Amino acid sequence: MPEPKKSTAVVLASGGMDSCVSIALACRSHDPALLHVMYGQRTEHRELMAFHAVADYYGIDRRLVIEMSHLSQIGGSALTDANIDVPKPGGAEGEIPVTYVPFRNAHLLCCAVSWAEVIGAVAVYIGAVEEDSSGYPDCRESFYQAFQSTVDTGTKTDRQIEIVRPLIDKTKSEIVQIGDGIGAPLGLTWSCYRSETEACGECDSCFLRWRGFLKAGVVDLIPYAKTPI
Amino acid sequence: MPEPKKSTAVVLASGGMDSCVSIALACRSHDPALLHVMYGQRTEHRELMAFHAVADYYGIDRRLVIEMSHLSQIGGSALTDANIDVPKPGGAEGEIPVTYVPFRNAHLLCCAVSWAEVIGAVAVYIGAVEEDSSGYPDCRESFYQAFQSTVDTGTKTDRQIEIVRPLIDKTKSEIVQIGDGIGAPLGLTWSCYRSETEACGECDSCFLRWRGFLKAGVVDLIPYAKTPI
Repeated sequence: MPEPKKSTAVVLASGGMDSCVSIALACRSHDPALLHVMYGQRTEHRELMAFHAVADYYGIDRRLVIEMSHLSQIGGSALTDANIDVPKPGGAEGEIPVTYVPFRNAHLLCCAVSWAEVIGAVAVYIGAVEEDSSGYPDCRESFYQAFQSTVDTGTKTDRQIEIVRPLIDKTKSEIVQIGDGIGAPLGLTWSCYRSETEACGECDSCFLRWRGFLKAGVVDLIPYAKTPI
Repeated sequence: MPEPKKSTAVVLASGGMDSCVSIALACRSHDPALLHVMYGQRTEHRELMAFHAVADYYGIDRRLVIEMSHLSQIGGSALTDANIDVPKPGGAEGEIPVTYVPFRNAHLLCCAVSWAEVIGAVAVYIGAVEEDSSGYPDCRESFYQAFQSTVDTGTKTDRQIEIVRPLIDKTKSEIVQIGDGIGAPLGLTWSCYRSETEACGECDSCFLRWRGFLKAGVVDLIPYAKTPI
C-alpha cells in the first residue's frame, strides 16, 4: 500500500545546525518546503550555500529564497551593520548581545506564514532555541506562543497553521545528539557570524556550536580558524 | 514655558486616507516617524507620492521607505500578482477578497516594530479598520491584541512598544469626519487599487472611500474616472 500523502510544512532554514535538525524532524511527519531568508547578515552567502547543500542532501526541491534589505536598512545590529563589531562571547549576564537583530524572527515567521497560506501548508517549523542560546528576546517560548495567536487571528480561518519549534527547550549538545542520531548532515551547516571560509572560532555562535559538539561527544566536521575558548 | 518633548511613535503610512488620519492623531501626543512600505502592489508609485505629500504637509522629516519584494514573490493576491484581476465590489458575504495579501499587516508591523526598537519609539500606529472594510483577517481587533503580545514577548524588555490602532472600530464615514474635523489633508491621499492617475471608481477600495465621503457629507477632492456604484 502506498504511503499516505503527507501535508506540507514550511521549514525556515538558515543553513545553520538548528534548522538542519528541524528539517530532519519535519521530514518525518510532513512534506517540507524550505524557506531561506537573506537579510543582509555578514555571512549570508555562506549560509545560502549551506542551505542549498542541506536541501540537496534531503532531495527537497521546493525552496524559496527571499532577499530582504530592510533589516539592514533599519540596522541596530552587529550582524547587519558593518560598523558594529561582532563581539567575543561573555557579555554581562542577562544582557542582550549586539548581534541581536531587532524582532528578526518575527519577520522570518511572517514570510513563512504568508508562504504557508499561499501553498496550503499546515505548519511552519523554526529551529529557535531558548535555552543555551544568546538570550535574544525573539527566541523565547513565550514569543512563539504569542505568535501562534497572531497567526490564528491574522490569517484565513479555513485552515490552521501551526508554529512548530521542536528545539526550543533543547541545549546545543542535545541538538547535536538528536541530529547525529537521525543522520542530519551537520557537517554541511554553517554557524559562524563573522567568516565565510573557516569558522572564526571567536564569535558567540562559534562558541555555542563548538561547546555543543564537545558536550555531545560528536566531531564537528567544519574547519575552525582557531579553537573556541 | 516650552512644551515638554514628546516621545517618538512610528506611524505606518501607506498614503491612504486611514493612515493620513492616523498621522494627524499621532501628532497630538507623539513625535511621529513615518514608515512607508512598498511591497510590489499595483499602485505603489502613486501611494509613495501620496505618502510624501502627506508627510510634507505635516512637516515630518523622519521618514523611512522600505522596498520589499518578497510579498509579490510569495504571491497569492490580486494586489501583487498582475495575473489576478482586481475584482469589482460585491463578493460573497463573509468571503475574503482576492485583494487580500496573505498576512500583510504582520509584515508591515514587524518593520515598524524593528524600527521602533532601533530609534527608541514607544508606539506604533497603524490605520487598520475592522468595521466597514474588506474583511481581511489581518484587520481584526483580535489580531492586533495578539500582535501586541508578540511584541511584548519578542522585543527587548526595557521599553514597551504599544501597537495603536485608533481607527479599528470606526466606519469609513467616521474616519472622513474625524479627518475633516482635525484638518487632515485627505485630498492628498490615494486609495485606488488599480489606477495611478484617476481613481478607477470600480475597485473595492474606491467604493469604500467614495461611500465614506458621501455618508460623511464631505467632498472628496481626488479625481474619479467614474462614479463608484
